[in-house]
Amino acid sequence: MRTRPLKVALLGCGVVGSEVARIMTTHADDLAARIGAPVELAGVAVRRPSKVREGIPAELITTDATALVKRGDIDVVVEVIGGIEPARTLITTAFEHGASVVSANKALLAQEGQSLYAAAEQHGRDLYYEAAVAGAIPLIRPLRESLAGDKVNRVLGIVNGTTNFILDKMDTSGAGYSEALDEATALGYAEADPTADVEGFDAAAKAAILAGIAFHTRVRLDDVYREGMTEVTAADFASAKRMGCTIKLLAICERAADGGSVTARVHPAMIPLSHPLASVRGAYNAVFVEADAAGQLMFYGPGAGGSPTASAVLGDLVAVCRNRLNEATGPGESAYTQLPVSPMGDVVTRYHISLDVADKPGVLAQVATVFAEHGVSIDTVRQQGKDGEADLVVVTHRAPDAALSGTVEALRKLDTVRGVASIMRVEGE
Amino acid sequence: MRTRPLKVALLGCGVVGSEVARIMTTHADDLAARIGAPVELAGVAVRRPSKVREGIPAELITTDATALVKRGDIDVVVEVIGGIEPARTLITTAFEHGASVVSANKALLAQEGQSLYAAAEQHGRDLYYEAAVAGAIPLIRPLRESLAGDKVNRVLGIVNGTTNFILDKMDTSGAGYSEALDEATALGYAEADPTADVEGFDAAAKAAILAGIAFHTRVRLDDVYREGMTEVTAADFASAKRMGCTIKLLAICERAADGGSVTARVHPAMIPLSHPLASVRGAYNAVFVEADAAGQLMFYGPGAGGSPTASAVLGDLVAVCRNRLNEATGPGESAYTQLPVSPMGDVVTRYHISLDVADKPGVLAQVATVFAEHGVSIDTVRQQGKDGEADLVVVTHRAPDAALSGTVEALRKLDTVRGVASIMRVEGE
Ligand SMILES: NC(=O)c1ccc[n+]([C@@H]2O[C@H](COP(=O)([O-])OP(=O)(O)OC[C@H]3O[C@@H](n4cnc5c(N)ncnc54)[C@H](OP(=O)(O)O)[C@@H]3O)[C@@H](O)[C@H]2O)c1
Ligand SMILES: NC(=O)c1ccc[n+]([C@@H]2O[C@H](COP(=O)([O-])OP(=O)(O)OC[C@H]3O[C@@H](n4cnc5c(N)ncnc54)[C@H](OP(=O)(O)O)[C@@H]3O)[C@@H](O)[C@H]2O)c1
Repeated sequence: MRTRPLKVALLGCGVVGSEVARIMTTHADDLAARIGAPVELAGVAVRRPSKVREGIPAELITTDATALVKRGDIDVVVEVIGGIEPARTLITTAFEHGASVVSANKALLAQEGQSLYAAAEQHGRDLYYEAAVAGAIPLIRPLRESLAGDKVNRVLGIVNGTTNFILDKMDTSGAGYSEALDEATALGYAEADPTADVEGFDAAAKAAILAGIAFHTRVRLDDVYREGMTEVTAADFASAKRMGCTIKLLAICERAADGGSVTARVHPAMIPLSHPLASVRGAYNAVFVEADAAGQLMFYGPGAGGSPTASAVLGDLVAVCRNRLNEATGPGESAYTQLPVSPMGDVVTRYHISLDVADKPGVLAQVATVFAEHGVSIDTVRQQGKDGEADLVVVTHRAPDAALSGTVEALRKLDTVRGVASIMRVEGE
Repeated sequence: MRTRPLKVALLGCGVVGSEVARIMTTHADDLAARIGAPVELAGVAVRRPSKVREGIPAELITTDATALVKRGDIDVVVEVIGGIEPARTLITTAFEHGASVVSANKALLAQEGQSLYAAAEQHGRDLYYEAAVAGAIPLIRPLRESLAGDKVNRVLGIVNGTTNFILDKMDTSGAGYSEALDEATALGYAEADPTADVEGFDAAAKAAILAGIAFHTRVRLDDVYREGMTEVTAADFASAKRMGCTIKLLAICERAADGGSVTARVHPAMIPLSHPLASVRGAYNAVFVEADAAGQLMFYGPGAGGSPTASAVLGDLVAVCRNRLNEATGPGESAYTQLPVSPMGDVVTRYHISLDVADKPGVLAQVATVFAEHGVSIDTVRQQGKDGEADLVVVTHRAPDAALSGTVEALRKLDTVRGVASIMRVEGE
């Protein structure tokens, strides 16, 4: 074993960073044995230098992250600050000064993955980011390496713990969205400003990362269709139950049937209770992967939290350190397929539509005609009257999203349709 | 991209090998793009040269596997023959002649892993074997790499599809063991001689491999306690149901509470229906991993079959080829902890014991005394009388296996105990 230590700069020492530092210290011997050389925490960059950080020698703390990554003797930079800047510039600077990088930053990877990969390659260094998607769950490495000899066709997952907690709460307790959000906030599962989670931005970043890796192409954040889950109601859960379904916020990456394009999207969807994703409780994450040869695989575990995320960061740290010792690099960006990303209108799936209609003869025929005119075939219809009005629930067969949108637009113009109460996609069949 | 191809020798072209050859041919461009160089099937060793093998040029077929691996121009040998010899000698010869090796051979890895790793290291080559455990499910790589910065405490899994199919059948249809086995055989899920599966030898080999990797130590096949599932009865399933459980054949690898030793075992066990492993149906596999920082992870998918297994083989092939191009090697054996493997008597778990007892006063007190004398604390007792006899079902708290064995031995000596109908461990709580 080499005795000269590999030097690690830790950028950020918050929820994740403090756990990375703790494990690096308490498990130093194990890490050294697994890497083949000791690893030394050479510096820790933070914003508030005076904050007490247990177990971290004061002389390692700095507010000058740039100077730390420029020191020239740093082998690996672990970026757990988050956000776009200064994280992006710090990572680029790290590569320029000869360091490899481990990051947990999904927002940055989704937006700037391509340029970061290019910088890593230019300087012959590694960029690893297992922690950026689904916390502790090994997912990036299985997709990038274990399935490197297979053809992935679909990735379908619950990749945001906050929204899964809220939806699970609504499902099991019958609570409304805001009530369930309040509980998630009180328990620390939702942040004070939950926008990134509940509006699907966080899941969309992960979908972009997963789609790029799964299909060996480039998927930018803007390519991902995104719909949050703030509009999901207790009534939607009641409808879902009637169909033997529950509702989850899903990230879905698919290769088109003809193989010539891909799609990536995040939205709430009904899935059958018999689907393994339906039983993913609380803040857990789970991701289904369908590949030609492997078939259906599922990966399940804690998708966030300081110590699970640190586990993923440290797995990457060990790999990157081994590569440094080998004077090699792991797999870089793989975007050779250059598959175009199709818009949401091209996505083919099933739909559950609730309409408020006038309760009089001929309405169903009118509605059915609109579906037929748009080429959307109906699977089941359920009608329930009350006081001259009726609920009409239509579940369709698979149809392109654009055809469904056209249908809904036309339905809204019918005199007999008072309103479209909800539209929800049905997945996982 | 390098244009000179990497040369692959395929040893064996049966269920798995023929799929490896097929995918290598049909997906040659993708493999080349992912590896950074084309891969060429340089030779295929089989036993019966005259058998028609679709898609494989006749001139590649040979019965002289030894000559093939000795050719000197082979970069990677894929061993999918199975069994100990000639596989072992062929792999060793491959290393001696400068090739890296990908194998799906759990029996060989469990028995000879140490010497094969040593040969790989001596010659600076890779030994990869993701396909040896749980088919297509990425498991070896996540344990070896993703969790390399964590401390794994427990691996609990369904790693044999044949027995899971049989047990699932017994559970859902109420069939007895031999009836369910017949169906598994008819459907091709069980081999003509099912001994390796139903007696737990296959799962034990996987447990040895998993325990070694998870705990960074050496676990030999002989270190694994093994009990098959041929004695599981419809009555056991009825008992399990009464407890809100089902029965699975589990491979369990654990680090002792004090961290100073490990255990590895395979046996049927009751697990609560609420446990994610309880809902693993048919021939599917699933493995739970518990680690200090990551928490509970689960990996699920097809555990066998030609194409799923080939998916895992090809993932390894890509990794090993990349390493060749990098002139590097991936992680080798990691056995630095040198933790001793404790015998089954030291395992601490819960038990479900069914006794046939005389239906008369004082029997329960007698039985309870025996448990107490052996330090096994009782959780629940259920007694049900019929014709002067009674069924007495005792469920214990956690106790060492040796204490339970002592208890059962003493119970058998009681006049009032007519027989011990079944003893089953209770796991997953
Ligand atoms: N938390 C999770 O469960 C989780 C899960 C998966 C991925 N991630 C990702 O991990 C990253 C970190 O998340 P986190 O939850 O640990 O965040 P956090 O608790 O907010 O910690 C951020 C850290 O960065 C430091 N920092 C902020 N701006 C800085 C600057 N300009 N220069 C130097 N240091 C700066 C902060 O310093 P102070 O301590 O002085 O404020 C703090 O230590 C994010 O990319 C996040 O998306 C987090
Ligand atoms: N099948 C699965 O689902 C599965 C799953 C996981 C792991 N595995 C492992 O994968 C390996 C292969 O399994 P399999 O199911 O593919 O076995 P298989 O169908 O029996 O194929 C074995 C192949 O090896 C060839 N062979 C046998 N002895 C040979 C010798 N002395 N020299 C050269 N070739 C020889 C056979 O040649 P002929 O074709 O001429 O008979 C045949 O092509 C085993 O280690 C198994 O444990 C299998």
